[in-house]
Amino acid sequence: MGQRIVVIGGGGGGLGAAGGAKAVDPGAEVIVFTEYEDVAYSPCGIPFVHGKEIPSFEALFLADKQAYVDAGIDIRYNTTVTSIDTSKKTVQVLDGEPVAYDSLVIATGFGYANPGVPGGDLDGLYYVKNIREAMEWDKRLDTVKKAVVVEAGPLGVEMITALAHRGIETHVIDPNPWALGEVADPDIVELVHESWTELGVQMHWNTTLEAFLGDDKGSVRGVMTSGGEIECDLVVVATHKVPNNALAAAAGLKTGSTGGVIIDGGMKTSAPSVWACGDVCEVPHGLGGLPLQGLTGSHAYAQGKVAGANAAGGSRTYNPVYVPWGMVAGKWMIGGVAFGEVTADALGMPHVIGIADGISRARYYPGVKKVRVKLIAEPGTLRLIGAQMVGGEGIKERADFLGVAVKTGLTLYDLATMENVYSPPIGALNEPIAVAAQKGIAASKAT
Amino acid sequence: MGQRIVVIGGGGGGLGAAGGAKAVDPGAEVIVFTEYEDVAYSPCGIPFVHGKEIPSFEALFLADKQAYVDAGIDIRYNTTVTSIDTSKKTVQVLDGEPVAYDSLVIATGFGYANPGVPGGDLDGLYYVKNIREAMEWDKRLDTVKKAVVVEAGPLGVEMITALAHRGIETHVIDPNPWALGEVADPDIVELVHESWTELGVQMHWNTTLEAFLGDDKGSVRGVMTSGGEIECDLVVVATHKVPNNALAAAAGLKTGSTGGVIIDGGMKTSAPSVWACGDVCEVPHGLGGLPLQGLTGSHAYAQGKVAGANAAGGSRTYNPVYVPWGMVAGKWMIGGVAFGEVTADALGMPHVIGIADGISRARYYPGVKKVRVKLIAEPGTLRLIGAQMVGGEGIKERADFLGVAVKTGLTLYDLATMENVYSPPIGALNEPIAVAAQKGIAASKAT
Repeated sequence: MGQRIVVIGGGGGGLGAAGGAKAVDPGAEVIVFTEYEDVAYSPCGIPFVHGKEIPSFEALFLADKQAYVDAGIDIRYNTTVTSIDTSKKTVQVLDGEPVAYDSLVIATGFGYANPGVPGGDLDGLYYVKNIREAMEWDKRLDTVKKAVVVEAGPLGVEMITALAHRGIETHVIDPNPWALGEVADPDIVELVHESWTELGVQMHWNTTLEAFLGDDKGSVRGVMTSGGEIECDLVVVATHKVPNNALAAAAGLKTGSTGGVIIDGGMKTSAPSVWACGDVCEVPHGLGGLPLQGLTGSHAYAQGKVAGANAAGGSRTYNPVYVPWGMVAGKWMIGGVAFGEVTADALGMPHVIGIADGISRARYYPGVKKVRVKLIAEPGTLRLIGAQMVGGEGIKERADFLGVAVKTGLTLYDLATMENVYSPPIGALNEPIAVAAQKGIAASKAT
Repeated sequence: MGQRIVVIGGGGGGLGAAGGAKAVDPGAEVIVFTEYEDVAYSPCGIPFVHGKEIPSFEALFLADKQAYVDAGIDIRYNTTVTSIDTSKKTVQVLDGEPVAYDSLVIATGFGYANPGVPGGDLDGLYYVKNIREAMEWDKRLDTVKKAVVVEAGPLGVEMITALAHRGIETHVIDPNPWALGEVADPDIVELVHESWTELGVQMHWNTTLEAFLGDDKGSVRGVMTSGGEIECDLVVVATHKVPNNALAAAAGLKTGSTGGVIIDGGMKTSAPSVWACGDVCEVPHGLGGLPLQGLTGSHAYAQGKVAGANAAGGSRTYNPVYVPWGMVAGKWMIGGVAFGEVTADALGMPHVIGIADGISRARYYPGVKKVRVKLIAEPGTLRLIGAQMVGGEGIKERADFLGVAVKTGLTLYDLATMENVYSPPIGALNEPIAVAAQKGIAASKAT
């Protein structure tokens, strides 16, 4: 038998690592420990089953267990790792013998930040994560009349939309003044708020959670907030993601300011023969190097491939991230990359703004949708440092594009003179990215 | 009164020029001559009205005549310019006095190449261009059972799809071995052919037109081709676009290898005080400088703005083009930028290819569509020199992106490590552009 590579965690990061290791060293023994009874499903799809956009949970499974057996990956289900000994190079599992490794990949993922208020043990508090639990919660949603979503971060936004689509009276409480307050600008989010209002969503901004309120049977009956009490049958706790760093920290691995495990450019931790990937670690932002944690499944998977490859003897690099993002919110798509105006202001970064309201198809073509693009650039050079968008089509592809544009140092001049496809069913005469860049250039000259 | 700027042509180029001139010199007298009774409609929408995707021709009008009066642009409808005298700086209109200009913009557009076969004067040969004529032809389409489309260039592709959607038995004849043979690769077009087959379209490739055949009333009853006779009630003549250069050539302006008027980087022609824009001129390709002619309405409009601005005293530049393109063909979107594999082969350009078959949303999300991306790069540097794509969503935005990527010199390395938005309703875990780039890098190492 060849070298043994142990992976802790069966999510996108862990499975990416297992595959990455096998790709570099097909003869390696690869063991993946997961405390769940499944791997290889898409947790990102759960809100859309709840919202009845996707007909069933079964659709979310990506591969059956035999596929991993066939790939030579030994997945140990329902197995909890309780400690890591980096000097002996072993991991301890609950009710088992120590398992030795040559290389270890930690991919223990995230948890939701503890709301830290009374009532946290009541029945009816839903932390969206595991698919088996989601199946049970989905049945319960049929009986729910009123729900509160705590915090409108990315998952919260999807759950608000899903619950409202399902016909549940949905409230959101969030300490920020608007949805996605940590990444999105208010002039981008305002269309989402309008759309939620149409769906009957009741929004409580600048509002903090003070307690979960229970009935005499121990079930949630409401929440107490800084703005008063809200009755409900269910609370979706969508607080921000924090790294599941307990195992790593107990083993003496260095963690950073976000709590994430610190890794180098090859996803290697501070401990010998130990790599990490996904939501348990922090990675540097491409602009300025601030550490980021709690990104997407796509990031976790890509990091996993690098960590696994290197754990098996490879020498791959994971680059700093610019984080193009996007999602459906109400009837809109919303997205962006790197810094928005509010974030740039908060960081004290000077900037020039260009905004354009365009359309996704010819004005007269059925299905045409609004597309608003806002570009944020460095004064002087007009180098792009971020973008924010909302629209009905093509937001993901534009966010991907502008992510590459930020990374490769393109300027508003490059974007202002871009050519664009013009064809009535798929593209308008003027591309809003180009128009926003032209406006940004004009604004920079006016100051 | 200020300077007088005369524009010949009321299409995208001419109206872009009129607006560009007014933007630079609001006091200028701007006169636009058009031989038609309308300006400011979208001819690009005509095939989609014929295909009943758009409910009426009225939707295609962009602005009413008063809007131009209000903007201070004097449009002379139904007025044919018969000659230009660049030494006297006048234009002659049919049945009128010479009109003097300080600056002239020629935007006389394109015509379809003469098929050069017998029967060209028969009734029933449809050259898609003018909206009033299209309204008449649309009524006639209600009576048409069988139609032949001559050549599957961009307009031909749209008309084939439109006629088939309308339930007409549609044939296409084309001397190339596949549709869009001058720009698209066969592995990209094959899905379009499949889709047309599903719609009942009968394709006759490697087939040349030999004659239009008439009945005793002077109406078309079929076409004779190199592969035999095809009966039909209507022929859509969608031969390639040639510049309407007669006025310019007669005035002594230099024309190039495409027949297009030669312009410099400011859209100025070889004659003093004369600019040109749109399909009547040729512009250099950004890679290698080959002259191109017959681009899109978006190009014409952008060129017009530059030509008009400079005619009014400005100093704007129109950059060489990389020509991102895209359209709907059958049930697919197809698109690309710069060179495909076939074009690169024909030009003797060495190249590396990377192809990926991806999807537009999460695999399990309703509405998910296939997206195939093919990247063409220069060996060694792996600098991107072109792309070809077919898919169900997001082709226009990817083509725009890759157009900027070619223009700014990005490589497969830049694209292979791009981040991408992952969100089930709008983007898959893996972006096919990144996967195609990874495959291209692997292919370059294998050789």
